Amino acid sequence: MAQNGTESTSTYLYDPTILSQLESSAFHAEYKDGVKPLNPGENFKLRPLCLEDFDKGYLQLLGQLTSVGEVTKEQFEDRFNKMKACDDSYYVTVIEDTSVNQVIGSATLVKEQKFIHHCSARARVEDVVVSDVYRGKQLGKVLVDVLVALGKKLNCYKISLECKDHNVKFYKIFKFEATHGQNYMQLRFFD
Amino acid sequence: MAQNGTESTSTYLYDPTILSQLESSAFHAEYKDGVKPLNPGENFKLRPLCLEDFDKGYLQLLGQLTSVGEVTKEQFEDRFNKMKACDDSYYVTVIEDTSVNQVIGSATLVKEQKFIHHCSARARVEDVVVSDVYRGKQLGKVLVDVLVALGKKLNCYKISLECKDHNVKFYKIFKFEATHGQNYMQLRFFD
Ligand SMILES: CC(C)(COP(=O)(O)OP(=O)(O)OC[C@H]1O[C@@H](n2cnc3c(N)ncnc32)[C@H](O)[C@@H]1OP(=O)(O)O)[C@@H](O)C(=O)NCCC(=O)NCCS
Ligand SMILES: CC(C)(COP(=O)(O)OP(=O)(O)OC[C@H]1O[C@@H](n2cnc3c(N)ncnc32)[C@H](O)[C@@H]1OP(=O)(O)O)[C@@H](O)C(=O)NCCC(=O)NCCS
Repeated sequence: MAQNGTESTSTYLYDPTILSQLESSAFHAEYKDGVKPLNPGENFKLRPLCLEDFDKGYLQLLGQLTSVGEVTKEQFEDRFNKMKACDDSYYVTVIEDTSVNQVIGSATLVKEQKFIHHCSARARVEDVVVSDVYRGKQLGKVLVDVLVALGKKLNCYKISLECKDHNVKFYKIFKFEATHGQNYMQLRFFD
Repeated sequence: MAQNGTESTSTYLYDPTILSQLESSAFHAEYKDGVKPLNPGENFKLRPLCLEDFDKGYLQLLGQLTSVGEVTKEQFEDRFNKMKACDDSYYVTVIEDTSVNQVIGSATLVKEQKFIHHCSARARVEDVVVSDVYRGKQLGKVLVDVLVALGKKLNCYKISLECKDHNVKFYKIFKFEATHGQNYMQLRFFD
Protein backbone atom coordinates (compact mmCIF):
# COMPACT_ATOMS: atom_id res chain seq x y z
CA MET A 1 0.00 0.00 0.00
CA ALA A 2 1.30 3.46 -0.83
CA GLN A 3 2.11 5.26 2.39
CA ASN A 4 1.49 8.94 2.79
CA GLY A 5 4.75 10.41 4.03
CA THR A 6 3.02 13.14 6.00
CA GLU A 7 1.23 10.73 8.34
CA SER A 8 2.92 8.97 11.22
CA THR A 9 1.91 5.32 11.54
CA SER A 10 0.89 5.89 15.13
CA THR A 11 -2.28 7.61 14.01
CA TYR A 12 -3.60 4.52 12.17
CA LEU A 13 -6.32 2.50 13.88
CA TYR A 14 -4.45 -0.67 12.87
CA ASP A 15 -1.11 -1.46 11.28
CA PRO A 16 -1.39 -0.64 7.55
CA THR A 17 1.28 -3.16 6.57
CA ILE A 18 -1.26 -5.97 6.91
CA LEU A 19 -3.10 -4.49 3.92
CA SER A 20 -0.01 -4.44 1.73
CA GLN A 21 0.63 -8.07 2.69
CA LEU A 22 -2.66 -9.25 1.19
CA GLU A 23 -1.88 -11.20 -1.96
CA SER A 24 -3.81 -10.63 -5.18
CA SER A 25 -5.01 -14.25 -5.05
CA ALA A 26 -6.90 -13.31 -1.86
CA PHE A 27 -9.35 -11.10 -3.79
CA HIS A 28 -12.45 -12.49 -5.42
CA ALA A 29 -14.37 -9.76 -7.21
CA GLU A 30 -13.91 -8.90 -10.88
CA TYR A 31 -12.60 -5.45 -11.70
CA LYS A 32 -12.57 -3.31 -14.81
CA ASP A 33 -10.88 -0.04 -15.86
CA GLY A 34 -7.62 -1.00 -14.11
CA VAL A 35 -9.08 -0.80 -10.60
CA LYS A 36 -7.30 -3.05 -8.09
CA PRO A 37 -8.28 -3.61 -4.47
CA LEU A 38 -5.04 -2.22 -3.07
CA ASN A 39 -4.84 0.44 -5.77
CA PRO A 40 -8.37 1.58 -6.52
CA GLY A 41 -7.54 4.58 -8.70
CA GLU A 42 -5.20 7.50 -9.22
CA ASN A 43 -6.35 9.68 -6.33
CA PHE A 44 -7.89 6.92 -4.27
CA LYS A 45 -5.94 5.65 -1.29
CA LEU A 46 -7.06 2.58 0.64
CA ARG A 47 -5.87 2.58 4.26
CA PRO A 48 -6.90 2.06 7.90
CA LEU A 49 -8.95 4.81 9.53
CA CYS A 50 -6.74 7.57 10.98
CA LEU A 51 -7.21 9.90 13.90
CA GLU A 52 -7.01 12.76 11.38
CA ASP A 53 -10.11 11.52 9.53
CA PHE A 54 -12.34 13.53 11.83
CA ASP A 55 -11.21 16.51 9.72
CA LYS A 56 -11.56 14.59 6.46
CA GLY A 57 -15.33 14.14 6.56
CA TYR A 58 -15.39 10.65 8.06
CA LEU A 59 -18.44 11.22 10.25
CA GLN A 60 -20.28 13.05 7.46
CA LEU A 61 -19.69 9.96 5.30
CA LEU A 62 -21.15 7.69 8.01
CA GLY A 63 -24.11 10.06 8.10
CA GLN A 64 -25.04 8.70 4.64
CA LEU A 65 -25.50 5.28 6.27
CA THR A 66 -27.41 6.11 9.43
CA SER A 67 -27.71 8.73 12.16
CA VAL A 68 -24.42 9.86 13.69
CA GLY A 69 -25.44 12.98 15.62
CA GLU A 70 -23.20 15.77 16.86
CA VAL A 71 -19.84 14.23 17.74
CA THR A 72 -17.00 16.45 18.92
CA LYS A 73 -13.39 15.86 17.94
CA GLU A 74 -12.69 14.77 21.49
CA GLN A 75 -15.51 12.20 21.44
CA PHE A 76 -14.26 10.89 18.11
CA GLU A 77 -10.73 10.55 19.43
CA ASP A 78 -11.93 8.82 22.60
CA ARG A 79 -13.84 6.25 20.59
CA PHE A 80 -10.92 5.80 18.15
CA ASN A 81 -8.54 5.22 21.06
CA LYS A 82 -10.91 2.81 22.77
CA MET A 83 -11.12 0.76 19.56
CA LYS A 84 -7.36 0.88 19.12
CA ALA A 85 -6.81 -0.29 22.71
CA CYS A 86 -8.70 -3.49 21.82
CA ASP A 87 -5.88 -5.26 20.05
CA ASP A 88 -6.73 -7.23 16.90
CA SER A 89 -10.42 -6.25 16.93
CA TYR A 90 -11.39 -3.16 14.91
CA TYR A 91 -10.35 -2.97 11.28
CA VAL A 92 -12.07 0.19 10.05
CA THR A 93 -10.84 0.57 6.47
CA VAL A 94 -11.35 3.67 4.37
CA ILE A 95 -10.72 5.10 0.93
CA GLU A 96 -9.55 8.71 0.74
CA ASP A 97 -9.81 10.87 -2.32
CA THR A 98 -6.38 12.45 -1.89
CA SER A 99 -7.16 15.18 -4.43
CA VAL A 100 -9.65 16.69 -1.97
CA ASN A 101 -8.42 15.14 1.33
CA GLN A 102 -11.80 13.55 1.98
CA VAL A 103 -12.71 10.07 3.15
CA ILE A 104 -15.18 8.86 0.54
CA GLY A 105 -15.68 5.21 1.49
CA SER A 106 -15.51 3.12 4.63
CA ALA A 107 -16.15 -0.44 5.78
CA THR A 108 -15.37 -2.13 9.07
CA LEU A 109 -14.22 -5.64 9.87
CA VAL A 110 -14.71 -6.50 13.55
CA LYS A 111 -12.98 -9.59 14.86
CA GLU A 112 -14.50 -11.50 17.77
CA GLN A 113 -12.41 -13.89 19.87
CA LYS A 114 -13.97 -17.26 20.61
CA PHE A 115 -13.27 -20.35 22.71
CA ILE A 116 -15.15 -22.59 20.26
CA HIS A 117 -13.49 -24.03 17.15
CA HIS A 118 -10.16 -24.38 18.94
CA CYS A 119 -10.08 -20.85 20.37
CA SER A 120 -10.77 -19.44 16.93
CA ALA A 121 -12.29 -16.11 15.94
CA ARG A 122 -15.07 -14.94 13.69
CA ALA A 123 -15.40 -11.59 11.97
CA ARG A 124 -18.20 -9.32 10.86
CA VAL A 125 -18.52 -6.77 8.08
CA GLU A 126 -20.16 -3.62 9.44
CA ASP A 127 -20.99 -0.10 8.30
CA VAL A 128 -20.19 -0.29 4.59
CA VAL A 129 -20.70 3.03 2.84
CA VAL A 130 -19.46 4.85 -0.24
CA SER A 131 -20.15 8.56 -0.61
CA ASP A 132 -23.11 9.05 -2.94
CA VAL A 133 -21.19 11.03 -5.56
CA TYR A 134 -18.54 8.27 -5.74
CA ARG A 135 -20.87 5.29 -6.12
CA GLY A 136 -20.58 2.99 -9.12
CA LYS A 137 -16.78 3.37 -9.27
CA GLN A 138 -16.15 -0.14 -7.81
CA LEU A 139 -15.11 1.31 -4.46
CA GLY A 140 -17.72 -0.59 -2.43
CA LYS A 141 -16.48 -3.76 -4.13
CA VAL A 142 -12.88 -2.87 -3.26
CA LEU A 143 -13.71 -2.27 0.41
CA VAL A 144 -15.62 -5.51 0.97
CA ASP A 145 -13.15 -7.57 -1.08
CA VAL A 146 -10.31 -6.24 1.08
CA LEU A 147 -12.20 -6.97 4.31
CA VAL A 148 -12.88 -10.56 3.23
CA ALA A 149 -9.20 -11.10 2.41
CA LEU A 150 -8.28 -9.51 5.73
CA GLY A 151 -10.68 -11.77 7.64
CA LYS A 152 -9.07 -14.81 6.06
CA LYS A 153 -5.56 -13.54 6.81
CA LEU A 154 -6.59 -12.93 10.42
CA ASN A 155 -7.52 -16.64 10.66
CA CYS A 156 -11.23 -16.11 11.18
CA TYR A 157 -13.26 -19.27 10.61
CA LYS A 158 -16.12 -17.26 9.15
CA ILE A 159 -17.26 -13.75 8.28
CA SER A 160 -20.85 -12.65 8.52
CA LEU A 161 -22.95 -9.56 7.95
CA GLU A 162 -26.51 -8.34 7.97
CA CYS A 163 -27.89 -6.41 5.02
CA LYS A 164 -31.08 -5.16 3.47
CA ASP A 165 -32.74 -7.18 0.71
CA HIS A 166 -31.48 -4.87 -2.05
CA ASN A 167 -27.85 -5.42 -1.03
CA VAL A 168 -27.91 -9.24 -1.03
CA LYS A 169 -26.82 -9.30 -4.67
CA PHE A 170 -23.89 -7.03 -3.89
CA TYR A 171 -22.55 -9.32 -1.13
CA LYS A 172 -22.96 -12.44 -3.27
CA ILE A 173 -20.07 -11.07 -5.36
CA PHE A 174 -17.77 -12.04 -2.47
CA LYS A 175 -19.41 -15.47 -1.92
CA PHE A 176 -21.45 -14.46 1.11
CA GLU A 177 -24.48 -16.74 1.24
CA ALA A 178 -27.87 -16.39 2.84
CA THR A 179 -27.96 -19.09 5.49
CA HIS A 180 -31.04 -21.26 5.49
CA GLY A 181 -32.58 -21.87 8.88
CA GLN A 182 -30.45 -19.19 10.55
CA ASN A 183 -32.56 -16.33 11.87
CA TYR A 184 -31.28 -12.85 12.62
CA MET A 185 -33.14 -11.33 15.57
CA GLN A 186 -32.72 -8.04 17.36
CA LEU A 187 -33.93 -6.04 20.29
CA ARG A 188 -33.62 -2.29 20.04
CA PHE A 189 -33.32 -0.06 23.12
CA PHE A 190 -33.05 3.25 21.25
CA ASP A 191 -32.11 4.61 17.79
CA MET B 1 -24.41 -11.54 43.61
CA ALA B 2 -23.05 -13.97 46.19
CA GLN B 3 -19.28 -13.97 45.98
CA ASN B 4 -17.30 -17.12 46.51
CA GLY B 5 -14.70 -16.28 49.12
CA THR B 6 -12.13 -18.64 47.66
CA GLU B 7 -11.87 -16.76 44.35
CA SER B 8 -9.95 -13.56 43.93
CA THR B 9 -11.75 -11.02 41.73
CA SER B 10 -8.72 -10.82 39.46
CA THR B 11 -9.64 -14.17 37.92
CA TYR B 12 -13.00 -12.94 36.63
CA LEU B 13 -13.27 -12.10 32.95
CA TYR B 14 -15.23 -8.98 33.89
CA ASP B 15 -16.12 -7.21 37.12
CA PRO B 16 -18.89 -9.25 38.81
CA THR B 17 -20.30 -6.22 40.64
CA ILE B 18 -22.04 -5.13 37.44
CA LEU B 19 -24.24 -8.22 37.71
CA SER B 20 -25.29 -7.46 41.28
CA GLN B 21 -26.13 -3.90 40.18
CA LEU B 22 -28.78 -5.09 37.71
CA GLU B 23 -32.18 -4.18 39.09
CA SER B 24 -35.04 -6.67 39.10
CA SER B 25 -37.03 -4.32 36.84
CA ALA B 26 -34.37 -4.96 34.17
CA PHE B 27 -35.48 -8.57 33.70
CA HIS B 28 -38.29 -9.54 31.38
CA ALA B 29 -38.91 -13.29 31.48
CA GLU B 30 -41.41 -14.95 33.76
CA TYR B 31 -40.06 -17.35 36.36
CA LYS B 32 -41.59 -20.07 38.48
CA ASP B 33 -40.42 -22.22 41.43
CA GLY B 34 -38.66 -19.26 43.05
CA VAL B 35 -35.99 -18.97 40.37
CA LYS B 36 -34.57 -15.44 39.99
CA PRO B 37 -32.08 -14.27 37.37
CA LEU B 38 -29.42 -13.32 39.92
CA ASN B 39 -30.29 -16.24 42.16
CA PRO B 40 -31.22 -19.16 39.94
CA GLY B 41 -31.35 -21.90 42.59
CA GLU B 42 -29.76 -23.24 45.73
CA ASN B 43 -26.57 -24.60 44.22
CA PHE B 44 -26.59 -22.47 41.11
CA LYS B 45 -24.26 -19.50 41.00
CA LEU B 46 -24.44 -16.94 38.20
CA ARG B 47 -21.14 -15.15 37.59
CA PRO B 48 -18.62 -14.04 34.97
CA LEU B 49 -16.39 -16.72 33.44
CA CYS B 50 -13.28 -17.35 35.55
CA LEU B 51 -9.80 -18.49 34.65
CA GLU B 52 -10.43 -21.53 36.88
CA ASP B 53 -13.34 -22.67 34.70
CA PHE B 54 -10.98 -24.64 32.49
CA ASP B 55 -10.98 -27.16 35.36
CA LYS B 56 -14.74 -26.89 35.86
CA GLY B 57 -15.79 -28.37 32.55
CA TYR B 58 -16.29 -25.10 30.67
CA LEU B 59 -14.93 -26.33 27.35
CA GLN B 60 -16.81 -29.64 27.65
CA LEU B 61 -19.98 -27.59 28.07
CA LEU B 62 -19.22 -25.59 24.91
CA GLY B 63 -18.70 -28.94 23.19
CA GLN B 64 -22.46 -29.44 23.48
CA LEU B 65 -22.92 -26.38 21.26
CA THR B 66 -20.34 -26.95 18.54
CA SER B 67 -16.84 -28.30 17.97
CA VAL B 68 -14.20 -27.07 20.39
CA GLY B 69 -11.29 -29.47 19.74
CA GLU B 70 -8.32 -30.16 21.97
CA VAL B 71 -7.54 -26.96 23.86
CA THR B 72 -4.75 -26.94 26.45
CA LYS B 73 -4.99 -24.98 29.69
CA GLU B 74 -2.39 -22.59 28.34
CA GLN B 75 -4.40 -21.95 25.17
CA PHE B 76 -7.53 -21.39 27.24
CA GLU B 77 -5.74 -18.92 29.48
CA ASP B 78 -4.23 -17.09 26.52
CA ARG B 79 -7.65 -16.63 24.97
CA PHE B 80 -9.18 -15.63 28.32
CA ASN B 81 -6.48 -13.02 28.82
CA LYS B 82 -6.83 -11.70 25.28
CA MET B 83 -10.57 -11.22 25.85
CA LYS B 84 -9.95 -9.58 29.22
CA ALA B 85 -7.41 -7.19 27.70
CA CYS B 86 -10.20 -5.85 25.46
CA ASP B 87 -11.86 -3.62 28.00
CA ASP B 88 -15.66 -3.51 28.04
CA SER B 89 -16.05 -6.11 25.28
CA TYR B 90 -16.46 -9.74 26.39
CA TYR B 91 -19.13 -10.57 28.94
CA VAL B 92 -19.00 -14.38 29.08
CA THR B 93 -21.50 -15.28 31.81
CA VAL B 94 -21.84 -18.72 33.34
CA ILE B 95 -23.85 -20.69 35.87
CA GLU B 96 -21.92 -23.06 38.10
CA ASP B 97 -23.47 -25.96 39.97
CA THR B 98 -21.49 -25.37 43.15
CA SER B 99 -22.44 -28.79 44.53
CA VAL B 100 -20.25 -30.42 41.88
CA ASN B 101 -17.98 -27.48 40.92
CA GLN B 102 -19.05 -27.65 37.30
CA VAL B 103 -20.01 -24.92 34.86
CA ILE B 104 -23.40 -26.05 33.55
CA GLY B 105 -24.55 -23.06 31.53
CA SER B 106 -22.91 -20.24 29.58
CA ALA B 107 -23.88 -17.33 27.37
CA THR B 108 -21.78 -14.50 25.99
CA LEU B 109 -22.58 -10.85 25.42
CA VAL B 110 -20.07 -9.18 23.12
CA LYS B 111 -20.06 -5.40 22.95
CA GLU B 112 -18.97 -3.64 19.76
CA GLN B 113 -17.88 -0.01 19.79
CA LYS B 114 -19.31 2.19 17.05
CA PHE B 115 -18.93 5.70 15.67
CA ILE B 116 -22.54 5.75 14.45
CA HIS B 117 -25.45 6.71 16.73
CA HIS B 118 -23.32 9.23 18.59
CA CYS B 119 -20.35 6.91 19.21
CA SER B 120 -22.69 4.28 20.62
CA ALA B 121 -22.24 0.53 20.89
CA ARG B 122 -24.21 -2.53 19.95
CA ALA B 123 -24.05 -5.95 21.54
CA ARG B 124 -24.55 -9.54 20.46
CA VAL B 125 -25.68 -12.65 22.26
CA GLU B 126 -23.39 -15.54 21.35
CA ASP B 127 -22.79 -19.16 22.32
CA VAL B 128 -25.79 -19.84 24.56
CA VAL B 129 -25.72 -23.34 26.02
CA VAL B 130 -27.09 -25.20 29.02
CA SER B 131 -25.71 -28.66 29.83
CA ASP B 132 -28.16 -31.29 28.57
CA VAL B 133 -28.88 -32.80 31.99
CA TYR B 134 -29.74 -29.32 33.35
CA ARG B 135 -32.12 -28.21 30.59
CA GLY B 136 -35.68 -27.22 31.39
CA LYS B 137 -34.68 -25.67 34.74
CA GLN B 138 -35.06 -22.07 33.46
CA LEU B 139 -31.29 -21.60 33.33
CA GLY B 140 -31.20 -20.73 29.64
CA LYS B 141 -33.88 -18.12 30.35
CA VAL B 142 -31.82 -16.75 33.25
CA LEU B 143 -28.67 -16.44 31.16
CA VAL B 144 -30.28 -14.58 28.25
CA ASP B 145 -32.41 -12.38 30.52
CA VAL B 146 -29.25 -11.34 32.37
CA LEU B 147 -27.38 -10.60 29.14
CA VAL B 148 -30.22 -8.43 27.85
CA ALA B 149 -30.28 -6.44 31.11
CA LEU B 150 -26.49 -6.17 30.92
CA GLY B 151 -26.60 -4.91 27.34
CA LYS B 152 -29.02 -2.19 28.35
CA LYS B 153 -26.93 -1.23 31.37
CA LEU B 154 -23.86 -1.03 29.13
CA ASN B 155 -25.73 1.57 27.01
CA CYS B 156 -25.94 -0.51 23.87
CA TYR B 157 -28.47 0.82 21.39
CA LYS B 158 -29.40 -2.69 20.31
CA ILE B 159 -28.65 -6.36 20.91
CA SER B 160 -28.79 -8.94 18.17
CA LEU B 161 -28.24 -12.65 17.71
CA GLU B 162 -28.49 -15.41 15.13
CA CYS B 163 -30.33 -18.61 15.93
CA LYS B 164 -31.77 -21.72 14.37
CA ASP B 165 -35.50 -21.84 13.54
CA HIS B 166 -36.34 -23.97 16.56
CA ASN B 167 -34.87 -21.40 18.97
CA VAL B 168 -36.79 -18.37 17.64
CA LYS B 169 -39.60 -18.98 20.14
CA PHE B 170 -37.10 -19.09 22.99
CA TYR B 171 -35.61 -15.68 22.12
CA LYS B 172 -39.04 -14.09 21.69
CA ILE B 173 -39.38 -14.44 25.48
CA PHE B 174 -36.90 -11.57 25.80
CA LYS B 175 -38.54 -9.46 23.04
CA PHE B 176 -36.02 -10.25 20.35
CA GLU B 177 -37.77 -9.88 17.01
CA ALA B 178 -37.08 -11.32 13.61
CA THR B 179 -36.24 -8.34 11.43
CA HIS B 180 -38.07 -8.14 8.15
CA GLY B 181 -35.92 -7.26 5.18
CA GLN B 182 -32.68 -7.79 7.09
CA ASN B 183 -30.68 -10.68 5.71
CA TYR B 184 -28.02 -12.59 7.59
CA MET B 185 -25.26 -13.76 5.26
CA GLN B 186 -22.04 -15.59 5.91
CA LEU B 187 -18.89 -16.83 4.26
CA ARG B 188 -17.18 -19.78 5.88
CA PHE B 189 -13.44 -20.40 5.49
CA PHE B 190 -13.30 -23.52 7.65
CA ASP B 191 -15.26 -25.32 10.40
C1 LIG C 1 -23.71 -0.55 -1.22
C2 LIG C 1 -22.62 0.43 -1.61
C3 LIG C 1 -21.55 0.44 -0.54
C4 LIG C 1 -22.00 -0.01 -2.95
O1 LIG C 1 -20.92 0.85 -3.24
P1 LIG C 1 -20.49 1.25 -4.75
O2 LIG C 1 -19.11 1.78 -4.66
O3 LIG C 1 -21.51 2.09 -5.38
O4 LIG C 1 -20.51 -0.18 -5.44
P2 LIG C 1 -19.56 -0.67 -6.60
O5 LIG C 1 -19.36 0.41 -7.60
O6 LIG C 1 -18.31 -1.24 -6.02
O7 LIG C 1 -20.44 -1.83 -7.20
C5 LIG C 1 -19.94 -3.13 -7.31
C6 LIG C 1 -20.94 -3.98 -8.04
O8 LIG C 1 -22.06 -4.18 -7.23
C7 LIG C 1 -23.20 -3.70 -7.87
N1 LIG C 1 -23.94 -3.04 -6.82
C8 LIG C 1 -23.61 -1.95 -6.14
N2 LIG C 1 -24.53 -1.67 -5.22
C9 LIG C 1 -25.44 -2.64 -5.32
C10 LIG C 1 -26.61 -2.94 -4.64
N3 LIG C 1 -27.03 -2.19 -3.63
N4 LIG C 1 -27.29 -4.02 -5.02
C11 LIG C 1 -26.86 -4.79 -6.04
N5 LIG C 1 -25.76 -4.56 -6.70
C12 LIG C 1 -25.06 -3.51 -6.35
C13 LIG C 1 -22.74 -2.77 -8.94
O9 LIG C 1 -23.64 -2.77 -10.01
C14 LIG C 1 -21.43 -3.37 -9.31
O10 LIG C 1 -21.59 -4.43 -10.20
P3 LIG C 1 -20.52 -4.65 -11.37
O11 LIG C 1 -19.19 -4.84 -10.72
O12 LIG C 1 -21.02 -5.87 -12.06
O13 LIG C 1 -20.58 -3.41 -12.20
C15 LIG C 1 -23.18 1.86 -1.82
O14 LIG C 1 -24.26 1.79 -2.71
C16 LIG C 1 -23.66 2.53 -0.55
O15 LIG C 1 -22.86 3.15 0.16
N6 LIG C 1 -24.98 2.45 -0.26
C17 LIG C 1 -25.59 3.10 0.89
C18 LIG C 1 -25.20 2.43 2.20
C19 LIG C 1 -25.49 0.96 2.22
O16 LIG C 1 -26.55 0.50 1.82
N7 LIG C 1 -24.53 0.18 2.69
C20 LIG C 1 -24.63 -1.25 2.78
C21 LIG C 1 -25.17 -1.62 4.12
S1 LIG C 1 -25.39 -3.38 4.22
C1 LIG D 1 -31.62 -23.30 24.15
C2 LIG D 1 -31.18 -23.69 25.55
C3 LIG D 1 -30.03 -22.79 25.96
C4 LIG D 1 -32.37 -23.48 26.50
O1 LIG D 1 -31.92 -23.74 27.82
P1 LIG D 1 -32.86 -24.33 28.97
O2 LIG D 1 -32.20 -24.06 30.25
O3 LIG D 1 -33.23 -25.73 28.66
O4 LIG D 1 -34.16 -23.43 28.78
P2 LIG D 1 -35.15 -22.93 29.92
O5 LIG D 1 -35.40 -24.05 30.88
O6 LIG D 1 -34.64 -21.68 30.52
O7 LIG D 1 -36.43 -22.65 29.08
C5 LIG D 1 -37.04 -21.41 29.10
C6 LIG D 1 -38.32 -21.45 28.31
O8 LIG D 1 -38.02 -21.57 26.96
C7 LIG D 1 -38.59 -22.75 26.45
N1 LIG D 1 -37.57 -23.30 25.59
C8 LIG D 1 -36.39 -23.81 25.91
N2 LIG D 1 -35.70 -24.15 24.83
C9 LIG D 1 -36.50 -23.86 23.80
C10 LIG D 1 -36.38 -23.99 22.43
N3 LIG D 1 -35.27 -24.45 21.87
N4 LIG D 1 -37.41 -23.58 21.67
C11 LIG D 1 -38.53 -23.10 22.22
N5 LIG D 1 -38.69 -22.95 23.52
C12 LIG D 1 -37.69 -23.34 24.29
C13 LIG D 1 -38.93 -23.63 27.60
O9 LIG D 1 -40.04 -24.43 27.34
C14 LIG D 1 -39.18 -22.63 28.67
O10 LIG D 1 -40.52 -22.14 28.57
P3 LIG D 1 -41.35 -21.81 29.90
O11 LIG D 1 -40.57 -20.77 30.67
O12 LIG D 1 -42.65 -21.32 29.37
O13 LIG D 1 -41.42 -23.11 30.63
C15 LIG D 1 -30.79 -25.18 25.63
O14 LIG D 1 -31.82 -25.95 25.12
C16 LIG D 1 -29.51 -25.53 24.89
O15 LIG D 1 -28.42 -25.42 25.45
N6 LIG D 1 -29.64 -26.03 23.64
C17 LIG D 1 -28.50 -26.46 22.86
C18 LIG D 1 -27.66 -25.31 22.39
C19 LIG D 1 -28.45 -24.27 21.62
O16 LIG D 1 -29.26 -24.59 20.76
N7 LIG D 1 -28.21 -23.00 21.94
C20 LIG D 1 -28.86 -21.89 21.34
C21 LIG D 1 -28.05 -21.42 20.19
S1 LIG D 1 -28.86 -20.10 19.35
